[in-house]
Amino acid sequence: MADGSHGAVLVAGAAGFAGAIAASLLQRHPALELGAVTARSDVGRRLSDVYPHHRVPLVLEELDLDRHAEGVRAAIVAYPHGAAAPVVQGLRARGVEVVVDLSADFRLRDLQTYEQWYVEHVAPELMAESVYGLPELYREELRGASVVANPGCFPTAALLALAPLARAGVIDDVIIDAKTGVSGAGRGASWRTHASRVDENVDAYGIDGHRHLPEIQQELGVLGVTAAVTFIPHLLPLDQGELVSCYVTPNRSLTQDEVDELFTAAYASEPFVELTDRSPGVRDVRDTNLARITARADERTGKVLVFCAIDNLYKGAASQAVQNLNVALGLDETAGLT
Amino acid sequence: MADGSHGAVLVAGAAGFAGAIAASLLQRHPALELGAVTARSDVGRRLSDVYPHHRVPLVLEELDLDRHAEGVRAAIVAYPHGAAAPVVQGLRARGVEVVVDLSADFRLRDLQTYEQWYVEHVAPELMAESVYGLPELYREELRGASVVANPGCFPTAALLALAPLARAGVIDDVIIDAKTGVSGAGRGASWRTHASRVDENVDAYGIDGHRHLPEIQQELGVLGVTAAVTFIPHLLPLDQGELVSCYVTPNRSLTQDEVDELFTAAYASEPFVELTDRSPGVRDVRDTNLARITARADERTGKVLVFCAIDNLYKGAASQAVQNLNVALGLDETAGLT
Amino acid sequence: MADGSHGAVLVAGAAGFAGAIAASLLQRHPALELGAVTARSDVGRRLSDVYPHHRVPLVLEELDLDRHAEGVRAAIVAYPHGAAAPVVQGLRARGVEVVVDLSADFRLRDLQTYEQWYVEHVAPELMAESVYGLPELYREELRGASVVANPGCFPTAALLALAPLARAGVIDDVIIDAKTGVSGAGRGASWRTHASRVDENVDAYGIDGHRHLPEIQQELGVLGVTAAVTFIPHLLPLDQGELVSCYVTPNRSLTQDEVDELFTAAYASEPFVELTDRSPGVRDVRDTNLARITARADERTGKVLVFCAIDNLYKGAASQAVQNLNVALGLDETAGLT
Amino acid sequence: MADGSHGAVLVAGAAGFAGAIAASLLQRHPALELGAVTARSDVGRRLSDVYPHHRVPLVLEELDLDRHAEGVRAAIVAYPHGAAAPVVQGLRARGVEVVVDLSADFRLRDLQTYEQWYVEHVAPELMAESVYGLPELYREELRGASVVANPGCFPTAALLALAPLARAGVIDDVIIDAKTGVSGAGRGASWRTHASRVDENVDAYGIDGHRHLPEIQQELGVLGVTAAVTFIPHLLPLDQGELVSCYVTPNRSLTQDEVDELFTAAYASEPFVELTDRSPGVRDVRDTNLARITARADERTGKVLVFCAIDNLYKGAASQAVQNLNVALGLDETAGLT
Repeated sequence: MADGSHGAVLVAGAAGFAGAIAASLLQRHPALELGAVTARSDVGRRLSDVYPHHRVPLVLEELDLDRHAEGVRAAIVAYPHGAAAPVVQGLRARGVEVVVDLSADFRLRDLQTYEQWYVEHVAPELMAESVYGLPELYREELRGASVVANPGCFPTAALLALAPLARAGVIDDVIIDAKTGVSGAGRGASWRTHASRVDENVDAYGIDGHRHLPEIQQELGVLGVTAAVTFIPHLLPLDQGELVSCYVTPNRSLTQDEVDELFTAAYASEPFVELTDRSPGVRDVRDTNLARITARADERTGKVLVFCAIDNLYKGAASQAVQNLNVALGLDETAGLT
Repeated sequence: MADGSHGAVLVAGAAGFAGAIAASLLQRHPALELGAVTARSDVGRRLSDVYPHHRVPLVLEELDLDRHAEGVRAAIVAYPHGAAAPVVQGLRARGVEVVVDLSADFRLRDLQTYEQWYVEHVAPELMAESVYGLPELYREELRGASVVANPGCFPTAALLALAPLARAGVIDDVIIDAKTGVSGAGRGASWRTHASRVDENVDAYGIDGHRHLPEIQQELGVLGVTAAVTFIPHLLPLDQGELVSCYVTPNRSLTQDEVDELFTAAYASEPFVELTDRSPGVRDVRDTNLARITARADERTGKVLVFCAIDNLYKGAASQAVQNLNVALGLDETAGLT
Repeated sequence: MADGSHGAVLVAGAAGFAGAIAASLLQRHPALELGAVTARSDVGRRLSDVYPHHRVPLVLEELDLDRHAEGVRAAIVAYPHGAAAPVVQGLRARGVEVVVDLSADFRLRDLQTYEQWYVEHVAPELMAESVYGLPELYREELRGASVVANPGCFPTAALLALAPLARAGVIDDVIIDAKTGVSGAGRGASWRTHASRVDENVDAYGIDGHRHLPEIQQELGVLGVTAAVTFIPHLLPLDQGELVSCYVTPNRSLTQDEVDELFTAAYASEPFVELTDRSPGVRDVRDTNLARITARADERTGKVLVFCAIDNLYKGAASQAVQNLNVALGLDETAGLT
Repeated sequence: MADGSHGAVLVAGAAGFAGAIAASLLQRHPALELGAVTARSDVGRRLSDVYPHHRVPLVLEELDLDRHAEGVRAAIVAYPHGAAAPVVQGLRARGVEVVVDLSADFRLRDLQTYEQWYVEHVAPELMAESVYGLPELYREELRGASVVANPGCFPTAALLALAPLARAGVIDDVIIDAKTGVSGAGRGASWRTHASRVDENVDAYGIDGHRHLPEIQQELGVLGVTAAVTFIPHLLPLDQGELVSCYVTPNRSLTQDEVDELFTAAYASEPFVELTDRSPGVRDVRDTNLARITARADERTGKVLVFCAIDNLYKGAASQAVQNLNVALGLDETAGLT
């Protein structure tokens, strides 16, 4: 362990977009070391050959749980759902202190709901010990956590947008219209990610039910919302970035001042949430761990509108994973993220 | 007048995006002739030098009401709001049979509402004789109309999406989340249309009130909707195309079959509205007069979701103007548009 | 055969980008009919479901040479190289009067060169009767041709840019730096066409030899050029459009006037070539059969620079095929293309 | 001066794209402090309001030479040409130790050439003491320099691509075909930077002479090239990034091994130049100070092809300015740039 370092971190699944960014952030991290990078494709290539601009010279290795668990204090796992759970399980079983999982495998608290939306769960015994990794909501629970379920990108933006209103008990109904870049679909090639389909286009998808819906519903439920949430994502002709536009019907009339107070109380001291009067754009947060939020009480309609912009690969995935790691390990929460 | 032609048409304001397309459509029109093209910029240049791909070789002239009204049967006016009204007035006063106005000047039925959202009205006496140019809603009124107020791009998409539900009297509440390309902002250069701002970005705008709101509210009102409408447009990194995602809270439970019946009844025989089970993308309608619509009754939430894609410069402006001209002049409604 | 029609045309391979456009152009063609559309994917779907904006309601069928050759006068084949030759052969053997082949199978005059760059040739006996389908160079040969080898997109642009100088015998050396949109790579999904790779990127490809090189070399050779041509394509973050920038070292000093004369002599009466003083952009020619060309004699360096913009799917493929069909069948060359 | 800091740096012109990045890099710099940010627009706004993702909370001030020169050791000036020279002069006169100028004002060694391509020079007396800030070529001269002329973005890429061949004396002729994103045109709004013009487009510009040409010619001349250089830039539909494709006619036959040796000798120990066998894309270097270069000896043509990708706002402007500052001040050249 290097002088001044609080330990080495493994990134498993570093050939994907989010895993590669996580590796890049860890390599520049002032208090942690990037221990190794493993992947299921591109094994033997330097990560800097796959993603030159990230400048991580480590060679991608095939994952060997025994070898890779050895000598790392923590891990970030960036595998697809279903494939992640056994890796998380294997790393924990070999004594890795904290595992942050970017997949959906530990996000849902209810096994049946998970299996309904995803696949059979391989490691249900770890569900109870996992903490939902949205530090703005679960900071205390994350300290010392052993398994962190990094939230989905849409839930991250939607929950940050809605938490102040949800906690205040004023949400009677809510519609979440989300817009995302294509990087959220991952590195796999399909007609859906084909440039000739994405370019100069926009459409809704998952209109009969998107997997991030039960996650949003679950977490809003924890905050007291009982309404059935409407959530519709749209694919935009851009690479990185995500904007959620939330339309809340409150159960009582709210003034702009009241709304401002709720959001200020929630986020004034949050290092990665910025409240802005100008409607946020995804460019404002590109390549950062920031969430930028604008909330508006609309007198004419009585609705409350909340817009939240994040970078789906950063606050929606990799940088939030590092933020979670910082919290779980008791480091400065902003270390390596500014 | 050429053999077989039903008359010549003037396009005033042909240097703008929509005006140029209108000129291009008229030049290829089987029953109408493009009489002249005038503009407030680029005077003296061939339209084919400004927009080579439209291939209209006519020279842009400065508008001379006396001269240009002479010998044309109809006109399409593509001026900014406020500047359009006197041109429409002048052309009508000089005997032009039909004027289709692409601006907002004759869309609102209430003078005070117009002047609150726009500017002082120069020709309020023409408001009563103008017909709102959404043929799918006002076909009968458009036959023989003298002034046609071509709808805004957002109202076109939103009203087509919502009319079947509005007419059925089932809309209790509605949220319209709209996504548009940058061409809607016109040819004028500003930071808002700067490629470095538009590219890789998305944000909401007009969140404190967009000028298309009173137009949507007015027309939904005509169809029986009393709820205060929520309408928020977003700017996307694309040039042409517009998608509206409408979230309707119905006043009673609706099945998918009922929704399908309402939309089929409304649009089965419409030449330019296509119902699709697959969520529509704006690519599907690029450079066409089509509106593609998907409507979904969501059992879980009780909401009805309607998505409508149009090309903002075509069905949202220029080609709809030609469609209106066809109807007003008693021609085949689809002439020049297929 | 419909009244006034000069016959029906089959489009084989209509599920691809270029084939679909060819079908769309034929459906609107004033003198030809679209007979049938066949494809190797999406069989059973309406073409208008695959590409709604093209508005071709025909159902994609599996190719049956006997059945489909029956009753069509001509065919456009939009298959990958290697797969095209047997279809062309089969259609010709069954009496189809003209077959325009969009693949490379009949472009190269030398069997060995073809087999070196592509695959084993299935129908070498047809090579002699095929005509290279660049009407601006081979118009006379195309009249009455039975097999037309539609040029590659890069050769189309490069040859139109260079022919006037080549014919004049002044090219001592030439470098062709080409820029293309992603649609040229076709509908197949791969990392190369992934939106996250294409977006916000540009790189050269085929730097060790691109398949369009021998085609350009061959045709420039016919025009008298003996120099070994340098040709490097680049992939740009756009969908449709192609620009070639040609840097010619002439064997003698040329003035701008001489250059202008050469290009005017070559193209003044060409319906689809436009000479422009302003450097051409690919937007200028989008969705058209146009080539726009700017030629500059640079006094300082002695070089002649020629820029040529086309739409790779139109003049570079589908609309040029229709132009070739018009010429081969003795119709108005511009029919269906304006 | 903060503990451990080697001094404060002023960024004048921080509201522009490059100036803002320079400020952002200095704020994160381990050995330098960001002293103040001044601008000619947006005065009074936090830089983090103008460019939220850069996260620089300083307020943009109006430049006051006396006040701002006080207490800073160095400055980066990001003004347009002509406007920069007096600021550089003023800062130097007030004792600022090093001024790195991002404009063209001190790049050309010949006053007459400068005034022919730009404007009258306000501070010709400083031309002699300025050093051309391409560290890979002028590292020794830059140590202790007082005025650094940060190279243009195109010259940076072109000179890095060509220097190894130029120094070896093998360049007989060279053509530089450059491709750039729109951010190079700056924040000013015009039709040229309008998203509807940039999107889905590509064209050459400056075909009758671009201002970066004399700069490239001058520096290649220093390296021994006597040929008149051809240099043509093209505008691409992307924001950041620049690729130059250089086509060299050597004065003798070169093998790939010889080419590899020249480039390896030149760049093997350079921290910011990467040689790659795969043709470089601008994505590979986005937001970095890297130049990625591929060089090919083409046996067939005898040409040598060199491709070089940089980020025009980083290595082509802001991060190169910081690199120059590091060298001039005797700091670790890579400080703040990894």
